[in-house]
Amino acid sequence: MKKKAVREENREGFVFSDEAWRSAEDIRPEKSGGYTLGIDCGTQSARAVIVRVKDGSMVSDFDMAYPHGILSETLPCGLSLPRGFVLAMAEDYLEVIPVIVQGALKKAGISGEDLVGIGVDATSCTVIPCTEDGTPMAMLPEHGQNPHAYVKLWKHHDVKRQAREIEALAQRRGERFLAYYGGVVSCEWMLPKVLQIYEDDREIFDRTAHYVDLCDWLTWRFTGKLTRSVNSAGFKGLWSAEEGDISREFLNELHDGFGEAYYAKVLKGPVLLSGARCGRLCQEAARWLGLPFGIVVSSGMMDGHASVVSMGMKRAGEMALIVGTSNAIPILADHLKDIEGFCGVVRDGIIPGFYGYTAGQIATGDMLDWYINNMVTARYTQEAGRLGVSLHKYLSEKAKESFPERNPLTILDWWNGNRSILCNQQLTGTIWGLTLSTKPEEIYCAMLQGIACGTRIIMDQGRACGIDIKKVFACGGIPRKDPFFMQQYANILNMPVYAANETNSSAHGSAICAAAAAGRAEGGYASLAQAMEHMHIRDLTEYRPQQEYAAAYEKIYERYCRLHWLLGSRNREFPDAAGKGG
Amino acid sequence: MKKKAVREENREGFVFSDEAWRSAEDIRPEKSGGYTLGIDCGTQSARAVIVRVKDGSMVSDFDMAYPHGILSETLPCGLSLPRGFVLAMAEDYLEVIPVIVQGALKKAGISGEDLVGIGVDATSCTVIPCTEDGTPMAMLPEHGQNPHAYVKLWKHHDVKRQAREIEALAQRRGERFLAYYGGVVSCEWMLPKVLQIYEDDREIFDRTAHYVDLCDWLTWRFTGKLTRSVNSAGFKGLWSAEEGDISREFLNELHDGFGEAYYAKVLKGPVLLSGARCGRLCQEAARWLGLPFGIVVSSGMMDGHASVVSMGMKRAGEMALIVGTSNAIPILADHLKDIEGFCGVVRDGIIPGFYGYTAGQIATGDMLDWYINNMVTARYTQEAGRLGVSLHKYLSEKAKESFPERNPLTILDWWNGNRSILCNQQLTGTIWGLTLSTKPEEIYCAMLQGIACGTRIIMDQGRACGIDIKKVFACGGIPRKDPFFMQQYANILNMPVYAANETNSSAHGSAICAAAAAGRAEGGYASLAQAMEHMHIRDLTEYRPQQEYAAAYEKIYERYCRLHWLLGSRNREFPDAAGKGG
Repeated sequence: MKKKAVREENREGFVFSDEAWRSAEDIRPEKSGGYTLGIDCGTQSARAVIVRVKDGSMVSDFDMAYPHGILSETLPCGLSLPRGFVLAMAEDYLEVIPVIVQGALKKAGISGEDLVGIGVDATSCTVIPCTEDGTPMAMLPEHGQNPHAYVKLWKHHDVKRQAREIEALAQRRGERFLAYYGGVVSCEWMLPKVLQIYEDDREIFDRTAHYVDLCDWLTWRFTGKLTRSVNSAGFKGLWSAEEGDISREFLNELHDGFGEAYYAKVLKGPVLLSGARCGRLCQEAARWLGLPFGIVVSSGMMDGHASVVSMGMKRAGEMALIVGTSNAIPILADHLKDIEGFCGVVRDGIIPGFYGYTAGQIATGDMLDWYINNMVTARYTQEAGRLGVSLHKYLSEKAKESFPERNPLTILDWWNGNRSILCNQQLTGTIWGLTLSTKPEEIYCAMLQGIACGTRIIMDQGRACGIDIKKVFACGGIPRKDPFFMQQYANILNMPVYAANETNSSAHGSAICAAAAAGRAEGGYASLAQAMEHMHIRDLTEYRPQQEYAAAYEKIYERYCRLHWLLGSRNREFPDAAGKGG
Repeated sequence: MKKKAVREENREGFVFSDEAWRSAEDIRPEKSGGYTLGIDCGTQSARAVIVRVKDGSMVSDFDMAYPHGILSETLPCGLSLPRGFVLAMAEDYLEVIPVIVQGALKKAGISGEDLVGIGVDATSCTVIPCTEDGTPMAMLPEHGQNPHAYVKLWKHHDVKRQAREIEALAQRRGERFLAYYGGVVSCEWMLPKVLQIYEDDREIFDRTAHYVDLCDWLTWRFTGKLTRSVNSAGFKGLWSAEEGDISREFLNELHDGFGEAYYAKVLKGPVLLSGARCGRLCQEAARWLGLPFGIVVSSGMMDGHASVVSMGMKRAGEMALIVGTSNAIPILADHLKDIEGFCGVVRDGIIPGFYGYTAGQIATGDMLDWYINNMVTARYTQEAGRLGVSLHKYLSEKAKESFPERNPLTILDWWNGNRSILCNQQLTGTIWGLTLSTKPEEIYCAMLQGIACGTRIIMDQGRACGIDIKKVFACGGIPRKDPFFMQQYANILNMPVYAANETNSSAHGSAICAAAAAGRAEGGYASLAQAMEHMHIRDLTEYRPQQEYAAAYEKIYERYCRLHWLLGSRNREFPDAAGKGG
């Protein structure tokens, strides 16, 4: 693996840190027997894992749902939220994290003294408005009734207008950064979310000192140092290794005076590579978590990218498929291409030494859950209950028996818009091919196939633009639970899929980063590459495409592509005015 | 109403009969207090009604499901049917009809002696292959295992290839008849169904003496005379008042020698107008039905067209919407236009004096039933059970509360293909606009709206081609049961809908035809026009469009049109090979 971490100062003065990338020598940790702690903050819950530094084995895990979950209807005070608002409460993180950390330690039978490092990853871009010292604005009594003071979750999509305006301005100005993001500005990013607050609630905007992505807010809490992870800055914050941050001029053209404010409130702190050392656990954090003061903390990561670390990906052309609520699809490459419809490419942006590309599908598990909650006939619910299996399991089993290779339905998985390769949150889910003899399991099967086709079209787009994908890893909650789904994936992609027999790959990846950040001298590894090499997940199941059905699956994919392009064009969207709440 | 019945011999020698259309004088029946019997043979069941001649009031009704129902999986002997076969057993008609006739008489408290006429209507084109004396081929022991010997129901769609071939040949030859049928040959018609037997089972084809549409087979059974109703001949048999039957040359170009066979086996008997006298109940039929010998029998009708009679439609620009398993949409007009995508136009083809146009939607009630049987979440099933209402009723009530004017979903009701205006049985049902917040009642509501939009696009096509539609009547099983559906109809069509508070309108229309066929001298009326004037249904509910939502429903319709044209083009069909059983 070629060392590419960047030392030079970029034009805005931020510095890459490569403390964790000091050497490529393969040397075992000096202090053997140590452990690292990985923390993964998901959408609905968080989990902590304890990992043995020596071999990466997962010693324990502990998870807990956030007490308040997602706020999309009302605030805790009862105030109704506008449609499209998807918020969370920072108190939940403060409350849950010590519980899962102590829980994981207890299950592992070790103490905090045995930890050589802590790593953390989170959903992104999940924006926390906070004060100068990092206190979340919504925790101040005077702002508890203000929606714009709350955490805006990554899937807070009510900033479509802002995203369009940013995109249009970037096109007009011929901004180079647009090419890194497939030509499209997503409403999942930092800028449109902050712009919404600037436009809709200037008072809160002015009072807020910092807008921080969740993973960076967590490392700030842990170490007392505000830094920015290259994951978040690069893929969600419009930063690039080549260009640095978005220009003040651009921001000021959005709104006069917005540029200075954005620089002061958002673009703060150095940009750190994955596995870099962010700092050490500060006194306050040590008290909060019940851990010893001074443990090394690695820079934050996006949850999907932490899985890349966990899988030990180390070659250009490797792709991870992180299947959960949504699909995150990071890809490693050794050269830079502009790929229309990808969410971004960042040099050293996932792990150092590679151009990191990322693409995604927004509503994978969400869409399957929607189906389970809204569309399953009572007959099937009863039968699954009788057999004592989950409805997902029951439908998956029936789908397996329904001649999936001949499934006549086509489903576009756009239940929450399309992230890649159309980058259009206005798009909606579609079921095509219904007849009087359509059975529920055929619909469920077509949903799984539609998700896999959505991934394949992303891969094909990459290939068409010169990024060949040679190996596919799958991880996340769903792959381990649903072999039929993985088999459909292998068939549709027409290449083997290597699925991790481990559900906590993000937290595991964060624990590996922690070992890199600790460094060899403190019981970790000399580099992230070495930490990954020794600690990555080895327990994989290989799903090979069923060659006897290759032609049939190719037809299923062709049909998907036809519908995808037919309904995916921008000029074929729903008129906004006819939508709910319009 | 202008009298237009045709007396001249057409070139193939068939004669219009207008015995029932003798005079336009308004004279009450001489023998008052008489009754007529109307029989309607549907897809799953048949019903008989007793109607008072004096005022058309329905004295009784009696219905019964066919013991064997629809055969689409196996024959009674256990033999598996090819996919796409939709058959029935003629024994069912022979068994059920005497039961419902006697049941209706008994409920009415009258005897057969009180009947002055019998009328019958049926689904069409439902083809019965039979011997020289009308015995159904499948009732002969030697043919009981042969699928092609059975009744082919109207919705036996496994003749798509044949329909395409006929259409292509007609285009090549520039056949005038094609223009009467919107430029498209439907696989619901007689010719492709018979052609399939000719191609696939020559032995059965040769042994079969006649292929007869169900309503004509029934009047043949009743009277001993094989005639053809203008409804069936005109709309399903490629006959027209102007051109007569399809030419032998054309048929021979399909297959050498096929023309002679088709003329001998299919195009037999005079073409009779609606309300014409077909004959009198013969001895054999009198014994079978338990009725007196000699009662007048009117010519057969298609079920949908019988409803036109029942509604008393009497002006050009009136349209009936017969909402049941499918939607039949007959329209009266006073001039001839070629309308692309209509199923047909026949001079005097529905009721004498008008150009009868017809259009349709294939899977109305079928689609809603499919939804109920396959897609309703257990939660709703339980709640409907608790309230003691049907799921249709429950969903309709919830849909009503779901802000239907803002429904963001678009549904194409093509669960069994599209009859009008795309005339393409390959098309399939589509649900567009799904999101994570979509609720089941929104889907149900969009189904109802999709059906109404499908009707509106038919009406708009008529208008664009010069057939203005000024008044809409609704009848059939569903309108009386679902006021919300009718309100959606009025909103989407943006005009009032007059719904009959009567479910047996087809049978009622047949009873009116019977009164016309009886004639004034035998206790009926002097003409069908007079019979309709005195006997038509008067109990209607008017649904007016909700003007406050006019713009919203216009948007819903616009969105429907966009998807309709996007997915409805012939070149966007599913590849056959990817379909089930391909």
